[in-house]
Amino acid sequence: MRYKVTVSYDGNNYVGFQSQINGLAIQDVIEKALKKIFVKDIRIVMSSRTDAGVHAIGQVFHFDDERIIKPEKLQYAINSSTPPDIYISKVEYVDENFHARFSVKEKTYRYLINIGEYDVFKNGYAYQCHYKLDIDLMKEGAKLYLGTHDFGSFNTSSYSEYPNQVRTIKEFKIVQKKDMLYITVTGTGFLRNMVRIMVGTLIDLARGQKGLADVKKMVDVPSKNTRRYNVDPHGLYLVKIKY
Amino acid sequence: MRYKVTVSYDGNNYVGFQSQINGLAIQDVIEKALKKIFVKDIRIVMSSRTDAGVHAIGQVFHFDDERIIKPEKLQYAINSSTPPDIYISKVEYVDENFHARFSVKEKTYRYLINIGEYDVFKNGYAYQCHYKLDIDLMKEGAKLYLGTHDFGSFNTSSYSEYPNQVRTIKEFKIVQKKDMLYITVTGTGFLRNMVRIMVGTLIDLARGQKGLADVKKMVDVPSKNTRRYNVDPHGLYLVKIKY
Repeated sequence: MRYKVTVSYDGNNYVGFQSQINGLAIQDVIEKALKKIFVKDIRIVMSSRTDAGVHAIGQVFHFDDERIIKPEKLQYAINSSTPPDIYISKVEYVDENFHARFSVKEKTYRYLINIGEYDVFKNGYAYQCHYKLDIDLMKEGAKLYLGTHDFGSFNTSSYSEYPNQVRTIKEFKIVQKKDMLYITVTGTGFLRNMVRIMVGTLIDLARGQKGLADVKKMVDVPSKNTRRYNVDPHGLYLVKIKY
Repeated sequence: MRYKVTVSYDGNNYVGFQSQINGLAIQDVIEKALKKIFVKDIRIVMSSRTDAGVHAIGQVFHFDDERIIKPEKLQYAINSSTPPDIYISKVEYVDENFHARFSVKEKTYRYLINIGEYDVFKNGYAYQCHYKLDIDLMKEGAKLYLGTHDFGSFNTSSYSEYPNQVRTIKEFKIVQKKDMLYITVTGTGFLRNMVRIMVGTLIDLARGQKGLADVKKMVDVPSKNTRRYNVDPHGLYLVKIKY
């Protein structure tokens, strides 16, 4: 049986989703819980390696086992042995053609920027921006991302790791509610740190460090030599994955 | 010079505002910062002893020192040496008649109840309620609190500590936004755990553990023998203090 699992987590206490040698990953916690339930090692296949400090509302992984457990029962069992900052929101049976990473059609991320006074309750959950931002210019810049481009300028990994850097951005929306900017990005796929660098580039633009022409050049001409502002991971949420 | 200071904090990592022998209090952190600035021991006088896990948006304290530091400069200095979960939002000069506790005219608290699915981002910031609640009945019950009463049934301290348990509740508002209940309570003053017991009693009512007559009796006849449901501290916020 192949299980598809949707999980939300507060990334503040983890080195990221994927197991690392330098600390506790969300994958470690989940695999430990699955080992307790299935009484053997279970290796999960994740959709996204979210970085240290990045949060998720709808991360997805899959795993296989011959034992068949009812979805609600498995959901309850995993949640019973994971800490309060990790929560399984759904378990589904899927056929063996489903793959958490390769079957992805679309992913949606959100990025939160607090442009108001420092707020203790947003600490770890939004980027605290002290710069004065031109939000209208930011929205203009965001339009340049839409469509299909080689996003090599927005990738901290090497060409060898990502031979194909072409991705399609379907939505890049910036909404201000009081002192908070909610940025929603939907695309067919994302390169390493791509959302954070896209947001960071718009912050550079909105505070006068870059012009629209600079952003356009980054989109049109993939380059590893441009300034890549990889903004704070704590403002980033993996919201939804569409298959 | 008497300084009035407004402070917000995330209470999750503290034993409460007031110094205790059993762990780190917010008072300890602030007094340590003040000692660094004034190069001597400074004892602060707080408005409210918030319990372990309780949060504040507008807690107030005062302290005296002959040294005169500009408000903005002092605010910056304290914030520079306190951790990110404590934030001084305002420093003011006040005359010596001002007292953080005795000059209070009105206090406003908020209590958050998540009546929807478990949410990792509300963990530690709202009470996760698994009971089905009759919100309209809750609102009916809340009306019984309004006005001036002896709130002895809503006090976990002894009569000797609070010889006068009469308080006036000016507002007790329950607003539902999606799956979250926002309860706002304003009064002239509050007894020990009073807000949490008031909310807990309304939860008892709304899930059928108590009737309106039971709540009315608790308000009309102060008693230490009634069931006092002191609900989760993590949903409670000290919002504002009026002088």
